[in-house]
Amino acid sequence: MGVVSFLSDFGLKDNFVGVVKAVILKINPCVQIVDICHQISPQDILEGAFILRNSFRFFPKGTVHLVVIDPGVGTERKKIIVKTKNFFFVAPDNGILSLSLEIEPPLKIIEITEDNYFLKPVSNSFQARDIFAPVVGYLSKGEPIEKFGRRINSYKSLALPKVILRNKSLEGKIIYVDHFGNLITNIESKRFFDFIKSKKFRIRIGNFTIEKLFKSYKEASFKEPIALINSFDCLEIAFRNKDASKILKSKKFDKVIIELI
Amino acid sequence: MGVVSFLSDFGLKDNFVGVVKAVILKINPCVQIVDICHQISPQDILEGAFILRNSFRFFPKGTVHLVVIDPGVGTERKKIIVKTKNFFFVAPDNGILSLSLEIEPPLKIIEITEDNYFLKPVSNSFQARDIFAPVVGYLSKGEPIEKFGRRINSYKSLALPKVILRNKSLEGKIIYVDHFGNLITNIESKRFFDFIKSKKFRIRIGNFTIEKLFKSYKEASFKEPIALINSFDCLEIAFRNKDASKILKSKKFDKVIIELI
Amino acid sequence: MGVVSFLSDFGLKDNFVGVVKAVILKINPCVQIVDICHQISPQDILEGAFILRNSFRFFPKGTVHLVVIDPGVGTERKKIIVKTKNFFFVAPDNGILSLSLEIEPPLKIIEITEDNYFLKPVSNSFQARDIFAPVVGYLSKGEPIEKFGRRINSYKSLALPKVILRNKSLEGKIIYVDHFGNLITNIESKRFFDFIKSKKFRIRIGNFTIEKLFKSYKEASFKEPIALINSFDCLEIAFRNKDASKILKSKKFDKVIIELI
Repeated sequence: MGVVSFLSDFGLKDNFVGVVKAVILKINPCVQIVDICHQISPQDILEGAFILRNSFRFFPKGTVHLVVIDPGVGTERKKIIVKTKNFFFVAPDNGILSLSLEIEPPLKIIEITEDNYFLKPVSNSFQARDIFAPVVGYLSKGEPIEKFGRRINSYKSLALPKVILRNKSLEGKIIYVDHFGNLITNIESKRFFDFIKSKKFRIRIGNFTIEKLFKSYKEASFKEPIALINSFDCLEIAFRNKDASKILKSKKFDKVIIELI
Repeated sequence: MGVVSFLSDFGLKDNFVGVVKAVILKINPCVQIVDICHQISPQDILEGAFILRNSFRFFPKGTVHLVVIDPGVGTERKKIIVKTKNFFFVAPDNGILSLSLEIEPPLKIIEITEDNYFLKPVSNSFQARDIFAPVVGYLSKGEPIEKFGRRINSYKSLALPKVILRNKSLEGKIIYVDHFGNLITNIESKRFFDFIKSKKFRIRIGNFTIEKLFKSYKEASFKEPIALINSFDCLEIAFRNKDASKILKSKKFDKVIIELI
Repeated sequence: MGVVSFLSDFGLKDNFVGVVKAVILKINPCVQIVDICHQISPQDILEGAFILRNSFRFFPKGTVHLVVIDPGVGTERKKIIVKTKNFFFVAPDNGILSLSLEIEPPLKIIEITEDNYFLKPVSNSFQARDIFAPVVGYLSKGEPIEKFGRRINSYKSLALPKVILRNKSLEGKIIYVDHFGNLITNIESKRFFDFIKSKKFRIRIGNFTIEKLFKSYKEASFKEPIALINSFDCLEIAFRNKDASKILKSKKFDKVIIELI
């Protein structure tokens, strides 16, 4: 029984997610479809790419990852299938896969052109239903990827905001705020530890400062923000049992600065 | 492996959806349950009927569609099973199925009366759990529909707001606002094209006007509302990468007028 | 095909729920995972315990219930597996299971210590992924529970607010507000009927009073709050087709008083 993962910005209010699953199951009734999540901020390719990078490798070998954050739906942007060592990815070619493919490089890239597989008429506003879902259905059933179109050699790239090394500080950014209000930065643990070595440091976010790294949320009092290396292996600013984004009035792309003291 | 689809106004905050699935799986562990969605506006039968109409046909033949928007729960409203050429529908008889049955007419309608199948005691506030779920469980396992009650010949109907043809204009209404803020009207593509033929036209919504039909969201600038035929095959008013309902201050049942110019 | 249920406070915005499912399926691809719900108020163990108590018994015999509301993640709180007559429960030992285990008592309790089963490195902030999910994967595949750690004899308990019997009144509290705005109290039906016997009574909530028990929502006018015994077998205050919590300005832990008149 194969697995399909599904990540999108469709939200859960409408029937979009359900209909895509229906189309997949109509073609391959033996597949199990797992939602990564569907609440990516509308049209936010970078956010989707970041979440995909932190999710894809936990799935079983052979999983087909369907990823639809697609502001260019209905235009001439490519639609691609990427085969890697362990997975298939099916997505619009808009950079959404690039952070994941840095970790697990592509072995083969196919531009989807074979419209025999599509639901007709193909809508210009819901190609997840009419193009991506049937392709995923047949692919998960074992159809060779070459059948879906022609081989290409590149895919669109995008990058997270860079972490900047200054004289005596390292400057990162909040790149994601989770359901609990935890603030996730683009500073990976290796980068953080390489910078501070064993020196004393101060983390600044807005008007707040934090002077140590915590091991867990519960170590902290309820009165101060804390910093820890989180499950994405990134530096995270949080507040024990509270919503740090509200208390610190922080949001995506705000700066987080680490200073040696 | 059979498929059950599930559409409701239960939301995702509580355990209602999970418990209904549990009851179905306890009876038929081999079924796959797919959420259409659960965020229909509470008690809004028409909205549920519209979403069902735009979802049911994408599912595999034999799918049992469980539909619970049920403001009359616990009263004498009927509970029905409808068999059509490709599907079964299980729902309260309050009109929720009628837009779908216009497309795929009923072959047999059963009023559910056989309380042997129910969970006891039957709650007056959660009959999705105690009545509909076990019926769906046994039905998806192959129990003949006649076993669940007595045959009846009609079901309750409801209708979408009518599109009105005036002297030189066609007047429709917004009937659904999706997660992205796109405004979906009751004007189907055939009705639209029959009216405008190849003449020039103007679409009016509130104080805004649109003078052409777009093929895709991305064709538009970011500064003006656009009109397109969407994946429901209806006229939709949208805003590229933005929330049209907020920008246009438009909501369900607002008028959308097409004028020849 | 086994069933795993999954209850958490993870919300649906992020990839947490999807990643936990991925880890389970990577170990046991033949399991079916059913969400109870993921919108428990963050870190609210009591709310989670209440929802679990009203959900677990509807699942098939043998279901593994994964329950993660875990404010102590990454600290020395125990992680446990509890075997009961019909189910397995996997959870942090923080009281989250106790209301359920009052109904279905534990036959065996294992403290999870065998880190061979864990994903490495074990994160301090997402142990649902690194500890609970793999344990659930192997357990649902048939691994004997003794293998996961050492037997212990107790688990942490917590209790719902008490219903207080006064001179001529019974005083309960709202303990849950559902998606529809219905107000669910801690007064179980038996307690209610034992108190009122066949006498006349008045239910007071804020400035509102209700003088009868309704059988269903639809019996009521749209103008007055109603009281009924709900599907949790508790006294519920509701408003026909409206949001009682908004109209009555009531919230969790507000008093509900029953007086004989």
